[in-house]
Order: sequence, then structure tokens, then C-alpha cells
Amino acid sequence: MKKVVIVGGVAGGASTAARIRRLDEQAQIVMFERGPHVSFSNCSLPFYLSGVVPNSKRLLMMTPDSFEQKHNIDARVNSEVIAINRDEQYVHVKNTVTGDVTTERYDTLVLSPGASPIVPNIPGNNLPHVFTVRNVVDIEKLHNAIVENDAANIAVIGGGFIGVEVAENLRLAGRNVSLVQSASHILTSFDDDMAQLLHKEMLDEGVNLIVGDGLAEIHTSSVVLRSGKEVAADIVVLAIGVHPETKLAAEAGLTIGETGAIAVNENYQTSDSNIYAVGDAIEVYHRLMGKKVRLALAGPAQRQARAAADHMYGIPVTNKGVIGSSSIQVFNYAAASTGLNERTAKQLGLAVEAVYVIAPDKVGLMPSSNPLHFKLIYEVPTGRIIGAQAIGKGNADKRIDVIATLITMNGTVDDLKELELSYSPMFSTAKDVVNIAALVANNLMAGRFQQVRVSDVRRLVEEGAYIVDVREPNEFANGALKGAVNIPLSQLRERMNEIPTDVPVYVHCRSAQRSYNAVMALNNSGYTNVFNVSGSFLGICLYECYRDVTEQREPIVTAYNFK
Amino acid sequence: MKKVVIVGGVAGGASTAARIRRLDEQAQIVMFERGPHVSFSNCSLPFYLSGVVPNSKRLLMMTPDSFEQKHNIDARVNSEVIAINRDEQYVHVKNTVTGDVTTERYDTLVLSPGASPIVPNIPGNNLPHVFTVRNVVDIEKLHNAIVENDAANIAVIGGGFIGVEVAENLRLAGRNVSLVQSASHILTSFDDDMAQLLHKEMLDEGVNLIVGDGLAEIHTSSVVLRSGKEVAADIVVLAIGVHPETKLAAEAGLTIGETGAIAVNENYQTSDSNIYAVGDAIEVYHRLMGKKVRLALAGPAQRQARAAADHMYGIPVTNKGVIGSSSIQVFNYAAASTGLNERTAKQLGLAVEAVYVIAPDKVGLMPSSNPLHFKLIYEVPTGRIIGAQAIGKGNADKRIDVIATLITMNGTVDDLKELELSYSPMFSTAKDVVNIAALVANNLMAGRFQQVRVSDVRRLVEEGAYIVDVREPNEFANGALKGAVNIPLSQLRERMNEIPTDVPVYVHCRSAQRSYNAVMALNNSGYTNVFNVSGSFLGICLYECYRDVTEQREPIVTAYNFK
Repeated sequence: MKKVVIVGGVAGGASTAARIRRLDEQAQIVMFERGPHVSFSNCSLPFYLSGVVPNSKRLLMMTPDSFEQKHNIDARVNSEVIAINRDEQYVHVKNTVTGDVTTERYDTLVLSPGASPIVPNIPGNNLPHVFTVRNVVDIEKLHNAIVENDAANIAVIGGGFIGVEVAENLRLAGRNVSLVQSASHILTSFDDDMAQLLHKEMLDEGVNLIVGDGLAEIHTSSVVLRSGKEVAADIVVLAIGVHPETKLAAEAGLTIGETGAIAVNENYQTSDSNIYAVGDAIEVYHRLMGKKVRLALAGPAQRQARAAADHMYGIPVTNKGVIGSSSIQVFNYAAASTGLNERTAKQLGLAVEAVYVIAPDKVGLMPSSNPLHFKLIYEVPTGRIIGAQAIGKGNADKRIDVIATLITMNGTVDDLKELELSYSPMFSTAKDVVNIAALVANNLMAGRFQQVRVSDVRRLVEEGAYIVDVREPNEFANGALKGAVNIPLSQLRERMNEIPTDVPVYVHCRSAQRSYNAVMALNNSGYTNVFNVSGSFLGICLYECYRDVTEQREPIVTAYNFK
Repeated sequence: MKKVVIVGGVAGGASTAARIRRLDEQAQIVMFERGPHVSFSNCSLPFYLSGVVPNSKRLLMMTPDSFEQKHNIDARVNSEVIAINRDEQYVHVKNTVTGDVTTERYDTLVLSPGASPIVPNIPGNNLPHVFTVRNVVDIEKLHNAIVENDAANIAVIGGGFIGVEVAENLRLAGRNVSLVQSASHILTSFDDDMAQLLHKEMLDEGVNLIVGDGLAEIHTSSVVLRSGKEVAADIVVLAIGVHPETKLAAEAGLTIGETGAIAVNENYQTSDSNIYAVGDAIEVYHRLMGKKVRLALAGPAQRQARAAADHMYGIPVTNKGVIGSSSIQVFNYAAASTGLNERTAKQLGLAVEAVYVIAPDKVGLMPSSNPLHFKLIYEVPTGRIIGAQAIGKGNADKRIDVIATLITMNGTVDDLKELELSYSPMFSTAKDVVNIAALVANNLMAGRFQQVRVSDVRRLVEEGAYIVDVREPNEFANGALKGAVNIPLSQLRERMNEIPTDVPVYVHCRSAQRSYNAVMALNNSGYTNVFNVSGSFLGICLYECYRDVTEQREPIVTAYNFK
């Protein structure tokens, strides 16, 4: 009878335990959890702050009793594994309530200790109104502190998934929330041209958003940022990032990888083949980056758990690596991404190009139709798709799941262009936005047109480049690039002689559809140096108005227009 | 200067014209449309009946004026092309208002005539209260007739996409609607085990649904069905199906394929290489069936249009064939499918297996979480995915788009199992329902467990088979299979000795998750003949209660339970 000891519950540990039980009715399975809860919905924690999850007890999914009854798994809470004796194959377990230390023998050990929130070494970091969010106990403490003190002002430090979700849910609960992000934009899985729409939404919903600034000191009713700026804060939530929990593994002499997480082989075995490790504490192979990374996501953790269990029982599993797919709700918007963003791809030295399209997520005359902002990143010259980002009030996640699937299957722009997706006016358009992005990329790769990006437009305006706005005059009057010439697409052919042939010509409309038609008309009329502005006026306004948020720039438009 | 004449607007013709213009600024493009509207949202027509589209003018997308102004395309409405002179390359065009006939020369001709609604040859088929739905004029006529006569009772004949959408939108408008479908279930892209959920929804929303019965006669205030049944009908809508419009092509001597639609090669050229054809009038290659089929869908029509235009200009396009992806809203449900259904696959003699899973579409504690019913069809022994169906109140379409992508990329059950999709509690679960279906299929293919289907359960109950219901006693009390033994999963191990080892054992719970754990526990405890019921009690209730709708059967359950 095999005895498996598992360190840590939640996604990684509990999934491993359940799969082992299904493969082996006789195995003795003991799962140790340091905290009082062996299984809870990690990703749902922030939603308790707004009342979307009305009761913190609902965050708990399984109890030691239900593990015992349903799966014959011996789950023990308040039990911290403090040391591993690898030679004799047992662990030391400390009861966190009584302090008693016992030992537990294992044939196979599974480490799923997770990752702990980073607390920066700054003045005030241990004040009682400073919180982190890792588990149900944490979120209850934070919630109680806010409610009991009727805290008016809350500062959330860190604009990653947890920081944004905590900020959003506290804002929905009626608090004054400041969100402080040290990078130049929140949610760095997105590129900065896409993230501005999320900045707009956070600000529109009343979050005091501060980017490009970090935490310097915590005082009793404020935080001071590196810039010297002071932000009112009766409660401070640190959501800066996480450290993989490697202490136990390292002290046992297991190899720690270059990323600082536990190193595992393709079957999730550590440097000791009797010890597996899964979840946020390990490093995983990123198939697009070609190297090991840390990726704290629930989906991959569950797959690792199952793969580790399968390997223990001789079931072959192909390790396909990770690509990093994720999604998040930001107030009224859905935002999702997969694969590499453009910034990372370029940092890695990959030869990539990107297109940014804005298209209706459903047929325009359906009541819930909204623009979907979609960015596709692909390798040149192969056309292999390596990433995408989608943001909109509709189903951004659906589009990203299609791209995640294509990336996994080594799909190209050409595959995406031809992809036959399900269509009904209520759910999409006959040519979905993902198809449209691929068509644009395909035309670009074939050299049928050229593009510039929204990030290039300020320079072009300042240089006095020749910019044609092909929207209708009423749209032009409501906000346009300074110096742009308004020649509506509907007048382009009769007024083409106004456009010079001896200088580069840059063309935009609202969402790049009309301008693309104009660019092609010019290209096929002898113009040789014409560029479409990818992202067009809507993208330009977002990029210029919300980038860096607090930085003041001379507007390059007569008025911003986000419609 | 090339002159292209296009017969028919809407998805096929208008898309061809626009792409040609983008590729060739000089081409002369003339587009003839028989009706008064050159471009409208075909798939949105039914939504005018409920007021979701408040004004029929909004269904119109482009006018001859906007084609002229934006694309320099000469679009002529009320112009029916009545004959083709292939030798001298011109067409005869009849003005449907004046009756005048003129000719128009072409270098290249594109046929996009579409398909016309079938009107069965039965008594009463030409009465003035009988309608079909093909274009804006049709839907206005139907709408006006209903409103002007305040028609109380409407019979919709045909349970395909148009029939279901017309029935739903008329029901939403407060009419008494009967929907008559000759097949045993509506929406035959679904298998009958999945379609029952849609039957339930139609009935719950007050549609008088009749399946397995056809139209025999139309009277002034009723229709008589083949069974002799009479259904009140002040208005009759025929939505039985469509005929490809092949008359023009056939009379010009172009080859008509075995399916009865216009035959084209891989570049959408007809048997005359100067004549292309696209859209609902042509037959296309189904890559999963390995043969030509008719497929009247807007997405493929647009891709064909673009491919035809590209081929005219020497741009290579890979024809990947079609797989048949579609989606539809049915009141509160979204229903989507792709690839082959199980019925068709088996008719074709393919070796397939299918799994039916019911899982939350979002994390269970999120307010909008609902069960998603998902069926995956795959080839054995290869595991190649060949179809899927999804129905639920959430995003069924998103799951089907993932499968459509996998099918196109020749993905397998193993690929789907490992697929890293975007996850947030608001949008999905860490292991999405599509991953779960693949895991079930993977276990099944590996021989780790066996299953029976909901369609087998009646026979098993009647034979007195040994059926174990592993739900909790309170669930069992609210409806259970007659003769089933209730041994909750939580008591399985202590009561396993009650389960005989010498007969087949069939196990179910509500949604097959708990029963799967029970099956594995039995399999790993020496039982050799244990079967999980795919679809479980929820699927059984739907199948038994709503199949054939009007047929009375002795219940095999003590009470139906759809929660």
C-alpha cells in the first residue's frame, strides 16, 4: 500500500490527492495544510469584499470531513510541515495550534506549498492596518477591519490581478480606493496600447489610479510614494506580487531553479524522484519563451497536479509547457490575454509584428453590441501566432480562448483568417474580430499595405506629417488630430488630387476599417508611401489620454473622443 | 480595365465586390440585386419581429449610394439577371419595376444568388396568410400582417435556425406560437440527447412545440398536420428549408453538383473559369465528411467571397473546406455546435465515441454561474476531435469556438485535455468544461472506466439492471430512477459490500462527477463491470421528459428533477 503525503491543499494539493484516489483505492493519502482551511476558491477571494460572494464561508469548498467521506483522504488542517527527512522518507509536522511536532512517513511526497505575498521592507510595513490577501483568513481579516473601522480610504499597492480585483471590489463596496502601480500600466500581461482602456475604466469608476510610482512608507492614515506624493489610507493592501514558498524544499536540499522557484522535471519530480512539486511554488517551462518561468495560475496548477499523480502510477502525460492565458473582469469590461505580449516578445528578441483592431463584438444592431479591442501578435516571417489581448464589454475571454488554442496547435495568421467559428448575431459577427485581425495581419505580411502604431502618432503630429482623417466631417468636428486633413472616404476618389504623392501619407478613421479601404485605394492609385494607423482615432485617444495617467502632456488632438 | 459583374448582394456578393475594390482601384464593378435592398443583415431578420431590432430600416447596412461613395461600386437594385451569354460574356438584366431588359458585358462574372425558402406543394400553400422569410421585404410583410390583423395564433413550420428564431421572437412579442418540426427534435445540428434541453426551454417559454409531425394542409385559420392534428394559425410561416438558386447557372449550362447546388472548384470557379460562384447557392467541401455539402451560413459565404476575389487577382488562398460551426440563442439559452454530431458521424460509418458532461460555466459561487451541457464527439482510436455541442445560459458559443479551432488544427482529446484557456471566476472555471470533457474522454479511451448513455437508461431500468445512485438521500428523495439503490458517495466505502460483484453495476449522480469518483473506487476495488451514466440524472430527466415531447411514455423516474 503506497503512502502519499501532500504538503498544502487548495488547487495543487487537493487536485493531486483526488486524482491519486481515483487511480488507487488502496493508497493512504495524507494532506497537510498549515491554515485552518484545506480547500477554498483562491481566485474568488476578492469578490467577498464587494458582497458578490456574500459570505466568506461560501469560499470554502471541501472540509477535512468531506475529503474523508467522499475520497477517503486524510486532510489535516493547522498542520505545518516544517522539515523533510529525505533519507528516511518522513516529514516533521507542527500543529500550529498546540505547537506539537509529530512525524509522518511517506513513500511519495508532494509539495504544493504555494506562494506568499511579498511585503516590502519599508517603514510601516508591519502596522496593524496593513494587509495581504492569500487565503480566507486574510480576506476575512481585511473585510472585518474595513467594516469595523468604516474605513473611508483604502490604498491598494500593486496593479496585478489581485490588486486590481481588490481595488475594484472595494470600490464596488463604496470605499475611496487608490490603486498604486509601480509599472507604467496595470496588468502587465497587456501591452501599454491595450491597457489604457482599462485605465479609463478604473478612473471612470472612481478609482484613484496612480501608475509609475511605488510605495515608500506607510503611515497610520496614509502612504507616501517614491515620488513624495501622499495618499490617504486608513487601510493598506499589499498586492505587489508573490514569492514561491521554497524554504521547506531548499532546507531539504532540493534544487531551486534560476527563477527562485522549486525546479522540477517534465513529470513534476523535484531533484529527489520521490518528491513531486506542483503549483505556485514551482517553475514551469514556457513554450513560447523557451525557458523556465514562474506562473501563479490555478489552471496550470490543476494540470500539474493531475500530471504528477498520473506519473506516480505510470500513466504517460505529455508536458506541453505553459503559454500564460488569463482573464479578469474590470468593472464593466472583460480583459483577457494569452501567449506573449509585444513588449515581452521584443525583449526576448523575437521577430514579431502586431495588429490592433477595434470591431463590434456582436452584430451592430443587436442591443448588447460593443466594440472589442483586440491585439494580435505574430512572428514574422512565419505568421506563427504568439499572443493576443482582448478588452471589451462583451466576451473578450472567448476570443482569447480561440487564440490560446491556436497557439497551442502552432497555428498561423493564415489558419486564423480561415477559422470557421460559430456565429449568431447575438454572439458575434459573421467575420469575428479574431478573423478580422488575421486578415489585417495577412494583408500586412503580403505587403499589400503598411501601418504605423498609435504609439507613433505623437511623433508624426509633432513632425507635421501628412495625416488624412477619412471620417465624416461631423466626426472630425468632435475631436481630431491637430494638423490632420479631413477627406472622408466617401469623397476620397474625387479629392485624391489634394493628397501629395511625394511625402508619406498617414491615414486613420475611427476604428481603422474605413482608413484601410482608403489606404488600399491610394496604394492602387500610384501612392507608394501610405500608412494605416493601427488602432485608429479611438486607439490614439486612449493612448494619449490615459497613458501614465498623471503625467500631463500637450494634447495632440483637438478633443478626445472615446465613442 | 477589368469589368466584374456580380449577381446578388448581401454576404456573398457585397463581400466579393468590396474585396475586389481593395485589390483593384481601376476595376469596373457592377452588382445586380433583384430586390430593393443590396445589403442587409440577413441573420438579424427574425429579431425585427420581437422589437429587439426596433425598426426594419436598421436591418439595411449599405445602400447603392454608400457603395458608390465609399467603394466606387455600381450597385443596382430591382435588377434581376435572367440569362448569361457565356460565349460573348454578357448578362441579360431585367428591371423588376419597369420590366425593361438590358445587357451588361463582363470580363468576370460572380454568381451569388443565394437560396430561396422551400414552399411545399400542399393545399393552401398560396393563401395570403402564408409567409416565408428571406429578406427585409419578407420580414416587413410578415410583421405588418401580424400587427395589422393582431394575429393571435401563429404556426411556424420548421425547427431549423430560422424557424426557431422566428418562433422565439414572435413569442417574445406576445403571440401564441406553435412550432412544428418534422424531425424528432428541433435544430438537427444537435444530437437528440442534447436537444431536449432546448425543447424544455421552448415549452417553458410557452411555445407550443410539436416534433415528429409535418405540415399536410393549410386552412385559413389553422394548419393540419400529417398526424391529423389541427393547429390554430392566423398566420403561417414556412421555414422548412432552402433551395439553392441554380436556375440561372443551370440555364447557362454551368455544372450543378450532386447536392443540387452550383458546383465550384477549390477557387470557387464554376465549370466556366470566367464565372465564380459563392454563398448559399454553391456546394462546398466538408472536411470532416469528406464530401460536398450545402451549407447556408454567413461566415463561410464571406470567406468564399474573399477567396474568389483573391483568386481573380492571383493571390493564393488555401481552401480548408468547412466544418459547420453555428450558434443560436433560444430564449435564455445559448446553443452552439461545430463539426459533426454523433448521429451524422455514425451514419457516415465513422468510428466515434461521445461524452456528455454537465459542469458549471463559471465558478459556482459567482452569481451568474449556470450548468453548461457539453457533448464532445471524437474518433476512436485516434482521439481526433470531430464535433461538439454546448448548451447553457452562459457562453456556450465560447466553448464551441475552442473546439472549432481544435478541429481545424486536427486536435485530439489529448490536446484538449491540456489546453490552457483563460480563467477568471467570472468567466469560467480553472478546469473549463471543455477540459473536463477531454479528461473524461481520455479516461474512457485509456480503459480506466466504462460508460453508458442516457439513451440506454430506459432499457436498463426495464431490464432491472443494478443501478446505484450516489447522490445524497435528500436529492434521491426528490426524484430518482425506479429501482435504483441509493448509496451516497460519502457512504460508498463503508457500504461497498452491498453492491454485487457478479452483475453489471451502473452508477449515476446528478451530473456524473460524483458517480465518476464512485466508479473509479469500484473499479479499483475489484469490480470489473461498472458503468458510469454519461449525462447522469439531469441528462436522464431531460431525455426522458422532453424527447418527442408529445409522446406519452411510462416514466422511469419517481419524479423529474431538472435542478
